[in-house]
Amino acid sequence: MCGIFGIYSPTKNNIVKKVYYGLYALQHRGQEGAGIAVGNGKNIGSYKGVGLVPEVFTNKELQNLYGHIGIGHVRYSTTGGNNIDNCQPFVVNSSFGNFAISHNGDIVNSALLREELEKNGHIFISTTDSEVIAQLLVRELLKTDDIVQAMKNVSEKLNGAYSMLIVYNDMMIAVRDPKGFKPLCMGMKNGEIYFSSESCALDIVDVPLERDIKAGEMIVVKGNKVKSYDLPNKAEKSSTCMFEYVYFARPDSTIDGISVHEVRRNIGKILAKENNTDADVVSPVPDSGILFSQGYTEEVGIPYKEVLIKNRYIGRTFILPTQEERDLAVRLKLNPVKDMIKDKKIILIDDSIVRGTTSKKIVTMVKKTGAKEIHFKIGSPKIVSPCFYGIDMATKDELIASSRTDEEIAESINADSIQYLSIKGLIEAIGREDLCLACLNGEYPTDVSCKLCNNNKKIKNK
Amino acid sequence: MCGIFGIYSPTKNNIVKKVYYGLYALQHRGQEGAGIAVGNGKNIGSYKGVGLVPEVFTNKELQNLYGHIGIGHVRYSTTGGNNIDNCQPFVVNSSFGNFAISHNGDIVNSALLREELEKNGHIFISTTDSEVIAQLLVRELLKTDDIVQAMKNVSEKLNGAYSMLIVYNDMMIAVRDPKGFKPLCMGMKNGEIYFSSESCALDIVDVPLERDIKAGEMIVVKGNKVKSYDLPNKAEKSSTCMFEYVYFARPDSTIDGISVHEVRRNIGKILAKENNTDADVVSPVPDSGILFSQGYTEEVGIPYKEVLIKNRYIGRTFILPTQEERDLAVRLKLNPVKDMIKDKKIILIDDSIVRGTTSKKIVTMVKKTGAKEIHFKIGSPKIVSPCFYGIDMATKDELIASSRTDEEIAESINADSIQYLSIKGLIEAIGREDLCLACLNGEYPTDVSCKLCNNNKKIKNK
Amino acid sequence: MCGIFGIYSPTKNNIVKKVYYGLYALQHRGQEGAGIAVGNGKNIGSYKGVGLVPEVFTNKELQNLYGHIGIGHVRYSTTGGNNIDNCQPFVVNSSFGNFAISHNGDIVNSALLREELEKNGHIFISTTDSEVIAQLLVRELLKTDDIVQAMKNVSEKLNGAYSMLIVYNDMMIAVRDPKGFKPLCMGMKNGEIYFSSESCALDIVDVPLERDIKAGEMIVVKGNKVKSYDLPNKAEKSSTCMFEYVYFARPDSTIDGISVHEVRRNIGKILAKENNTDADVVSPVPDSGILFSQGYTEEVGIPYKEVLIKNRYIGRTFILPTQEERDLAVRLKLNPVKDMIKDKKIILIDDSIVRGTTSKKIVTMVKKTGAKEIHFKIGSPKIVSPCFYGIDMATKDELIASSRTDEEIAESINADSIQYLSIKGLIEAIGREDLCLACLNGEYPTDVSCKLCNNNKKIKNK
Amino acid sequence: MCGIFGIYSPTKNNIVKKVYYGLYALQHRGQEGAGIAVGNGKNIGSYKGVGLVPEVFTNKELQNLYGHIGIGHVRYSTTGGNNIDNCQPFVVNSSFGNFAISHNGDIVNSALLREELEKNGHIFISTTDSEVIAQLLVRELLKTDDIVQAMKNVSEKLNGAYSMLIVYNDMMIAVRDPKGFKPLCMGMKNGEIYFSSESCALDIVDVPLERDIKAGEMIVVKGNKVKSYDLPNKAEKSSTCMFEYVYFARPDSTIDGISVHEVRRNIGKILAKENNTDADVVSPVPDSGILFSQGYTEEVGIPYKEVLIKNRYIGRTFILPTQEERDLAVRLKLNPVKDMIKDKKIILIDDSIVRGTTSKKIVTMVKKTGAKEIHFKIGSPKIVSPCFYGIDMATKDELIASSRTDEEIAESINADSIQYLSIKGLIEAIGREDLCLACLNGEYPTDVSCKLCNNNKKIKNK
Ligand SMILES: Nc1ncnc2c1ncn2[C@@H]1O[C@H](COP(=O)(O)OP(=O)(O)O)[C@@H](O)[C@H]1O
Ligand SMILES: Nc1ncnc2c1ncn2[C@@H]1O[C@H](COP(=O)(O)OP(=O)(O)O)[C@@H](O)[C@H]1O
Ligand SMILES: Nc1ncnc2c1ncn2[C@@H]1O[C@H](COP(=O)(O)OP(=O)(O)O)[C@@H](O)[C@H]1O
Ligand SMILES: Nc1ncnc2c1ncn2[C@@H]1O[C@H](COP(=O)(O)OP(=O)(O)O)[C@@H](O)[C@H]1O
Ligand code: SF4
Ligand code: SF4
Ligand code: SF4
Ligand code: SF4
Ligand SMILES: [Mg+2]
Ligand SMILES: [Mg+2]
Ligand SMILES: [Mg+2]
Ligand SMILES: [Mg+2]
Repeated sequence: MCGIFGIYSPTKNNIVKKVYYGLYALQHRGQEGAGIAVGNGKNIGSYKGVGLVPEVFTNKELQNLYGHIGIGHVRYSTTGGNNIDNCQPFVVNSSFGNFAISHNGDIVNSALLREELEKNGHIFISTTDSEVIAQLLVRELLKTDDIVQAMKNVSEKLNGAYSMLIVYNDMMIAVRDPKGFKPLCMGMKNGEIYFSSESCALDIVDVPLERDIKAGEMIVVKGNKVKSYDLPNKAEKSSTCMFEYVYFARPDSTIDGISVHEVRRNIGKILAKENNTDADVVSPVPDSGILFSQGYTEEVGIPYKEVLIKNRYIGRTFILPTQEERDLAVRLKLNPVKDMIKDKKIILIDDSIVRGTTSKKIVTMVKKTGAKEIHFKIGSPKIVSPCFYGIDMATKDELIASSRTDEEIAESINADSIQYLSIKGLIEAIGREDLCLACLNGEYPTDVSCKLCNNNKKIKNK
Repeated sequence: MCGIFGIYSPTKNNIVKKVYYGLYALQHRGQEGAGIAVGNGKNIGSYKGVGLVPEVFTNKELQNLYGHIGIGHVRYSTTGGNNIDNCQPFVVNSSFGNFAISHNGDIVNSALLREELEKNGHIFISTTDSEVIAQLLVRELLKTDDIVQAMKNVSEKLNGAYSMLIVYNDMMIAVRDPKGFKPLCMGMKNGEIYFSSESCALDIVDVPLERDIKAGEMIVVKGNKVKSYDLPNKAEKSSTCMFEYVYFARPDSTIDGISVHEVRRNIGKILAKENNTDADVVSPVPDSGILFSQGYTEEVGIPYKEVLIKNRYIGRTFILPTQEERDLAVRLKLNPVKDMIKDKKIILIDDSIVRGTTSKKIVTMVKKTGAKEIHFKIGSPKIVSPCFYGIDMATKDELIASSRTDEEIAESINADSIQYLSIKGLIEAIGREDLCLACLNGEYPTDVSCKLCNNNKKIKNK
Repeated sequence: MCGIFGIYSPTKNNIVKKVYYGLYALQHRGQEGAGIAVGNGKNIGSYKGVGLVPEVFTNKELQNLYGHIGIGHVRYSTTGGNNIDNCQPFVVNSSFGNFAISHNGDIVNSALLREELEKNGHIFISTTDSEVIAQLLVRELLKTDDIVQAMKNVSEKLNGAYSMLIVYNDMMIAVRDPKGFKPLCMGMKNGEIYFSSESCALDIVDVPLERDIKAGEMIVVKGNKVKSYDLPNKAEKSSTCMFEYVYFARPDSTIDGISVHEVRRNIGKILAKENNTDADVVSPVPDSGILFSQGYTEEVGIPYKEVLIKNRYIGRTFILPTQEERDLAVRLKLNPVKDMIKDKKIILIDDSIVRGTTSKKIVTMVKKTGAKEIHFKIGSPKIVSPCFYGIDMATKDELIASSRTDEEIAESINADSIQYLSIKGLIEAIGREDLCLACLNGEYPTDVSCKLCNNNKKIKNK
Repeated sequence: MCGIFGIYSPTKNNIVKKVYYGLYALQHRGQEGAGIAVGNGKNIGSYKGVGLVPEVFTNKELQNLYGHIGIGHVRYSTTGGNNIDNCQPFVVNSSFGNFAISHNGDIVNSALLREELEKNGHIFISTTDSEVIAQLLVRELLKTDDIVQAMKNVSEKLNGAYSMLIVYNDMMIAVRDPKGFKPLCMGMKNGEIYFSSESCALDIVDVPLERDIKAGEMIVVKGNKVKSYDLPNKAEKSSTCMFEYVYFARPDSTIDGISVHEVRRNIGKILAKENNTDADVVSPVPDSGILFSQGYTEEVGIPYKEVLIKNRYIGRTFILPTQEERDLAVRLKLNPVKDMIKDKKIILIDDSIVRGTTSKKIVTMVKKTGAKEIHFKIGSPKIVSPCFYGIDMATKDELIASSRTDEEIAESINADSIQYLSIKGLIEAIGREDLCLACLNGEYPTDVSCKLCNNNKKIKNK
C-alpha cells in the first residue's frame, strides 16, 4: 500500500513537522519504513529509515530538515526487502535540477522499463518503482525543459497504479494514475496546499479536505498557483481499488467522496441480508472486522460482543515464539474470552481470507475455547486472482478461494459455515461501479500479461 | 498500577520466555519499564530497563537469563522518576540467601518505614516500596530462618496495597495484602505454577486459571508443594479496588471470579437506566469507553457509532507538538469523524474524569466538528479523594469533581450535560460489595492519616 | 586500578564538564565504566555507564548534571563483573543527608565487613567496596553528626588501599589510606579545589598541582576552607604501590614528587647496568616498554627501534578471531616489522610478566619473523605473590615467576634469555624506599591473612 | 586517503572476517566510514556505515555477509559530507551482472564526467567518484562483454589517482592508475589472492606480500588464474604520492619496495644534516613526528625525549570544549611534561604544516610550559599548492607556506626557528625519483587546469 503526504507553503513556512504528523496519521498504510524530503526551492534535504514514523524521526532528524516544499512516505514492504535503499522518497540531485519522488502503488511494467533503461547503461541503486520513474523523468527532462510535458511523457510509459508526489525545484507535483487505483486527495488552509493518501491525515493537521485528485489528473503547485492537467492516457472510467474501502483505509477517511466507515457498516448489513445465520452473538475479528460486525448487528439484532481481545501493544519488534511455542503466536495477538464463547453459536466476521492459515488458527482457537458453532463471514468476496497493483497477496495457487467451494473452505478452516460478500453486494455497499475488482474476478483494468506468465510469483500475504 | 507475573517449574524447565509472554499480555498495566528475575534455586539473574516489554527485552537479553523460578514486572510510573533504579524486580544477594521481589500497589506507610530503617543505618538505592519490603524482610530473616514467619512479620508492618511475588532460593512466594486491593491469580499446567496480576496473561500462555489468591493469603511453592498460609492481619472484609473493574484491567480478565467485560457492559446499562438521555448516537471515547457504550446502546437502542477514531500507533516516543501546534495534540490521538458528528446529538461515554483537561479538549473538538449536543457520561462515580494505594490521581484540589456540581462540571468541559454513574450503580454493576471506594467516598480501608495531612500532594493524572 | 577526579567550586560554578575532561585524562586507569556525581550543596545528581568516558557521556548526559561539587570515576574491572551496579560513584540519598563516594584501591577485609553488615540486616546492591564504605559511613553518621569523626571511625575499620573522594552535602572530602597505597593529589586555581588520582589530569584542565595528599591524610573542603586531618591509624611509613611508577600511571604524571617518566627511563638504564646484553637493536613492546627501552639505549648505545607496531585503534568492541584464527589475535594488536627483525639480535623490553601467555605469543611471533636472538627484559622484578590492593593479577599458582628459574621462564616463553630488574634496582630507579613491594617479595604492608588462605583465588590478568 | 582491501578465494572459503581484519589494519587511512561487499560468484551482499570499522561491523553485520570474493573500504572524508550514501563499496545490481567497486584517490575530472553522464540522463545517488566510475563502466559493458576491454576504456576517460578493487560476477579486478599515485599491493597464501592499500594489512592476516601492483596495471583474478594487463594510458614514469611515505602510511608498511619507517628515519637524519641546531632535547609531536625525531637523534646525538604525551583515547566522539574552554582543546590531545621542558632548548619535529593553526597552538603551549627555545622542524618540504589527488589540504590562500618566508612562519607560530626538509632531501630519503611532488612544487603529473581555476576551493585540513 504505502502512504504519501505533501505540503507546499507559498509563504515559505517550514512544513517539516506537519509532514511528520501527516505521516503519523497514515502509519496504518505502512509500518516498514518512513522518509521525508523537503526543499527550499533549490536544495532538497531528506532522511529515511526502517521502522515506524516516530522510530525513524526523532527531534534530531527533524531539526536537520528545513524547507517549505516537502513530501513524506510510509513504506509497506512488498517486494524489495526491508532495507533503507528501498525506502522513499527517492531523491535525485542533478545538474538540471533536484527532485524528490514518492509514490504508492505498483507499476506493472516496471521490470520491462528497468531492463530497457539498463540496456541504455542506467544503473539502479534500489529495487523500487520510484527509481524507475525517476530515471524515466530524467530522460524526459533532457528532451524538454517543461516538467509538465515531461511528466505526461513519463505517464504514457507507465502501466499500473501510482499516486505520486514530486518536489521539483520550487514546485510540487501531484499525480494520480489514469485509472485512479489508489486514493489521493488535496487540502487547503491559509494558502498552503496539502496532499494526502487519505483524508484522515488532513483532519489530523486540521486542514479541510478540498477535493480528491481525479484519476488521470496532474496538479502542479508553484508559488500561489495551483494548476490541473489531464494525463494523456487518462481513462474513461476509473478503477479504484475496492480494497481501500474494505480494508486498507482508515475508517475516518473519505475516498472519492465516499465515507469508508459507512461502506464498512453497509457491508455488514448486506452480509446479513445476503445470508442471515442464526446465532447467539456477532463478533468481529478485531480490528478490521469491527465495523462489519456493527453493521451486521444493526441489521439482524443479534447482540454484538467482542469475543476476541486484541493486544494493543503488538508491534514489529516482538520476539517470536519458537517452534514448540508456535501455538502461542495467535494468542499473543488475540485472546478469546471464555465466558462469552462457551457453548455459544458465534458469527465471526473478518475482512478477507487470503491463504486461510491465520483464519484457521483463529477459528480453531475459538472452537477450543468452547464455542458451539462458528459461522465465519467475510466482508469481501472471494479473492481468486493476485493483485499486481501494489497489494501483496499470495500467488493464484496459494489463494484458498481460487479453487475451492465454500464448504471446502469452511472445512479447511474448521468453521461450521462460511459466507463471503457477493461482488454485487460489495458494489452496492460502496455505492460506485468504477472499481478495480481484479483480484475478485480476474478482470484486470490494465494489461498484465507480462505478470500472469510468472504463474507462481512468490509474494507474502498482506 | 504495575503488573506482575511469575512461574515456578518443579521440573526445572527454563521459564524465561513464558514470563516474557506473560508480561507482554500485562503491558497495559505499565509501559514505563519492565524487568525479569530468574533463579535456578541458587543464583538469581535479572535484567530490567526503561520502556515497553519488547523494547527492554530482545533475544540477547532473554538468552542471558536462565532458570526455573522466575518473576517479572511491568512498571507504571507513579512517584520516583523514570529511571532504571526504580524498576523491578528488586534483587538482593546476601549471605543468607538470594531473593528477588516484585509487587504492585502502594505501601501507605512506606515513608515512615523507610525513615525508621534509615535511622538504623540502612541505605536505600531506589525510591521503591520493593526495597523497603526487601529491607524489612532481611531484618526478619535475621531473626528467623523460617521465610513464612518472616513474611508474616513483614506483613504486619505494611499498611497498604501489595500483590507481591518473591523468588527466594528454591521457593516462589506469592502474597496478596490483607485487604486484597490489587488482583492476583494463580494458574497451573503440567505441574507448573503460574501467578499473574490478571487472568488474561494466563490465557496468553494457554494456562488454565486455577483460582484467585485470597486477600491476606500467602502461597509458598517449593518443589511439587503448594502451601497456603493466612497473613496474621488478614482482614474480615476485602476492599478490592473498584477501578480495576472500571478501567485498569483488560476486559478479557476475570477478577475474583467476576468478568471485567461484563462489569463494563453492566455499567453502560445502569448508566442508561439511571438517566436515559435522548440522542442520535451513542459513542465511546475509545478505547476505554467502548464497552460502557455498547452496554448503554443495548439498554436504550440508540445506535452505537465510534465518532472518534483512535490512532493505533500512538506510543511513548512521539514528538510532541510545540506550543503553537498544541491544538493538534488531541487530534493526533483521536480524530473526530465529521459525517457522523455533524448536527447530531451525541452521547459520549468515557471511564472517568480526573482534572477535566483532556475531557474538555475532546468535547470541544467534537463540538467544533459540528455536533449539535454532547452529553458526556462517565462509567464511574465522581472522584473526590486521592488514591493512596497505587493510582496516580491528582491532589484533592485538582480533582474537578471534588467541589463542583454536575452543572458546573458540564460547563467547564463544554458539554451540554454530564452524568456520572452512582456509587450504588457501580456496586450493582460489579456485583460485590467488598470494594475499595475510597477515591469516591473518602472512606479509606486502612489508616491514611499520614498521607492526608500532605493536603496538596503533587501527583500526575493516570 | 580505577581513577578518581573531583572539583569543589566555592563560587558555585558548574564544574561538570571539567570533571569530564579530568576523567578523560585518567582513562588509562580504567576503561570498563565511568560515572560522575555532582551536588549543589543539597541534592546529588549522577550518571554512570559501561564503556569509555566519551561513550558513557554525551552532551545529553552532561546537560542533565549540574552543580559545583562533583566527583567522577573511571572503572577498571577487577572482581564484580562488568555491570552498571558496580560502577561508581556510589550515591546515597537518606534522611540525614546525601552523599556520593568514589574510591580506587581494594579493601582487604571488605568481605568480612560486608558479612558483618549483612548479619545486622543490611542489604547490598552491588559488590563494590564503595558500598561497604558507604554503609559503614552511614552507621557512623547515626552515632555522630561530625562527618570528620565519622570518617575517622570508618577508616579504623578499613584494612587496605583506598584513595577516596566524597561529596557530602556542601562538602568535599578526600582521603588517602594510612599507607598511601594509591596516589591522590590536589590542585588549586581561582579558588577552586581539584583532586585527582594523577597530576596529568590537572595539567589537562590547566590547573597547577598544589601537592600530593599524604598517606593517612583526610582533607575536608567547605566553602573557602580547606582543612587537613590525620586519620587515627596513619602509618609511620607509607607503602605506595611501586607499580604505579612502573606501569599504571601516565608518564606525564608526578607521584609524591617523583616524575613517572624519569623513573621509567631510570629503570631502563639500571636494567642495562645490571646486565648488558650484546644486541643489534633495543625495542620496546609498545606502549609500556617504550620509556624503559629509551633509557636502556641511552645507557648502552645500541640503536633504539620499534620492531613491533601497535594498532592505534585496538579497542574494546573488537570482534575476536575464532579458534582457528586465534594466531591472528596478537598480530591484530602488534605487527612485527620484518626488515627490522630479520637476522637481528633483539633486546625486547616489556613492563612485566604475569602468566607469561602474552609474552610467549609476542616472542614467538618475532622469532617467526626472522629474529636471530631475542633477549627479553622486564622493567620490574619478578612477580611472585598476588596483589590484594586493587590490581588484578593471577593467583600464586598461575604466576609464571613464582616457582621458576630465569632459564625456565626464558624457555617457556621462547626467548634466548630473560632478565628482570632487581628489587634493589627498582628502589634506586624510583628513588624512594617507602613502597609496597608485596607482589615482589610477599611482604604485605597490612594484614592479609584472610586473603592468603584462599590459595587459588581466581582473578584475571591485568 | 581511504584504504581498500580485497580477497579472492578460489576454493570458495568465506573471506568476510578476513576482510574485516584487513580493514582494521587500514583504519589509520580513514575513520569516517567503513564498508564491505562480498560476492559468491552471483549475488553481492554489502553493508556499510559511518564510524570506525568495529563500530560499523558487529557480529550481526558480519554474519549477514557471506561469500568468497570480497572487498572492503575505510573512508576518509574529503568532499561529500559524512553520510552513508557516500560510503563505499558502491554496489550495482543490473541485468548484465552485479558488481561492487571501491577505490582510493580522487578523479580530477569527475565533475566533468558526471556532468556529461547527467546530460545523457544518468542519475547520481551519491557524490562519490566510485559512482562515476561505475556509471562509466556500465556504459562500456553495454558495448562489450569483455570486462578487461571495458575497464581499459574506462581508464582512458579517468584523469587522476585511483587504486581500485572491483568484484564483478565471479571475478576480482584490481587496478592502479597509470601514474600509480596511491599504493596497492598483492599477497598470496594457500591459493587465495589478497589486495591491500598497504602491506601492513597483509601482515596482520599473516599473508606474505607478493608484490606491489604496478602503475597502470590491471589484475584480473578468476578461479585459479591471475592475469595482468597494461592500461592503455600507462605512464612512462610513475608519480607516487610522496606523502604516503612521509605521513599517511603506517610505518610497518612497504610501498613499491621501500620501507616506510626507514624513509621516516632517513628524513630525520637528513633534516639534521641539512641544518643541525643546538638544543638540549629532540622531541616529536607524537605520533607522526616520532620516527623523524629518532632519526634526527641518531644523527646528532642530542637526547630524544617525548615532551608531549598524547592521550591514547582521543577519538571521534569526544565532546568539544566550549568557546571559553577552547584553550583546553590541544591539551586534551597533547600534554606537555613540565620537568622535561622547563628552561630547555627543544627541537620539536612534526610531519607537516598546512594552515599553521595547530602548530601555533602546540608551540605556544610548550613555550608557556617554560621552554627556553623551540626549534620547529618539519619532516617534509613546504606545502605550497593544493592536492587534487585525494588529500584534503587547504586552498592555496590558506597554505601558510605558500607566500611566507621561514622567518615569517616561525614568528607566526611562535617558534624560535623553523626548518623544512628540502625537496632534494625528501627524494634522497625516499630513494626514488618517480614521485608526485605537486603540492610541494606545483608541478601536477596530470592536467589539473579544470581545478586550478576554482582558486579558492574550500577544503578541510587533513
Ligand atoms: N484507528 C483505527 N480505528 C479503527 N480501525 C482502524 C484504525 N486504524 C486502522 N483501522 C483498520 O484496522 C484494520 C487493520 O487492523 P487489524 O485487522 O487489526 O490488523 P490485521 O491487518 O493484523 O488484521 C484495517 O481495516 C484498518 O482500516
Ligand atoms: N485489548 C484491549 N481491548 C479493549 N480494551 C482494552 C484492551 N487493552 C486495554 N483495554 C482497555 O482500554 C482502556 C485504556 O485505553 P484508552 O482509554 O484508549 O487509553 P487512555 O488511558 O489513554 O484513555 C482501559 O480501560 C483498558 O481496560
Ligand atoms: N599517552 C601515553 N603515552 C605513553 N604511554 C602511555 C600513555 N598512556 C598510557 N601510557 C602507558 O602505556 C602503558 C599501557 O600501554 P600498553 O603497554 O600498550 O598496553 P597493555 O596494557 O595492553 O600492554 C602503561 O605503562 C601506561 O603508563
Ligand atoms: N601504529 C602506529 N605506530 C606508529 N605510527 C603510526 C601508527 N599508526 C599510524 N601511525 C602514524 O601516525 C601518524 C598519525 O598520527 P598523529 O600524528 O598522532 O595524528 P595526527 O594526524 O592527529 O597528527 C601518521 O604518520 C601515521 O603514519
Ligand atoms: S486487484 Fe484487488 S487489491 Fe489490487 S487494486 Fe484491484 S481491487 Fe485492489
Ligand atoms: S482509592 Fe480508588 S483507585 Fe485507589 S484503590 Fe481505592 S478504589 Fe482503587
Ligand atoms: S602488591 Fe604490588 S601491585 Fe599491589 S599495591 Fe603492592 S606493589 Fe602495587
Ligand atoms: S599533490 Fe602532494 S599529497 Fe597530493 S598526491 Fe601529489 S604528493 Fe601526494
Ligand atoms: Mg484483521
Ligand atoms: Mg481513555
Ligand atoms: Mg604493555
Ligand atoms: Mg601529527
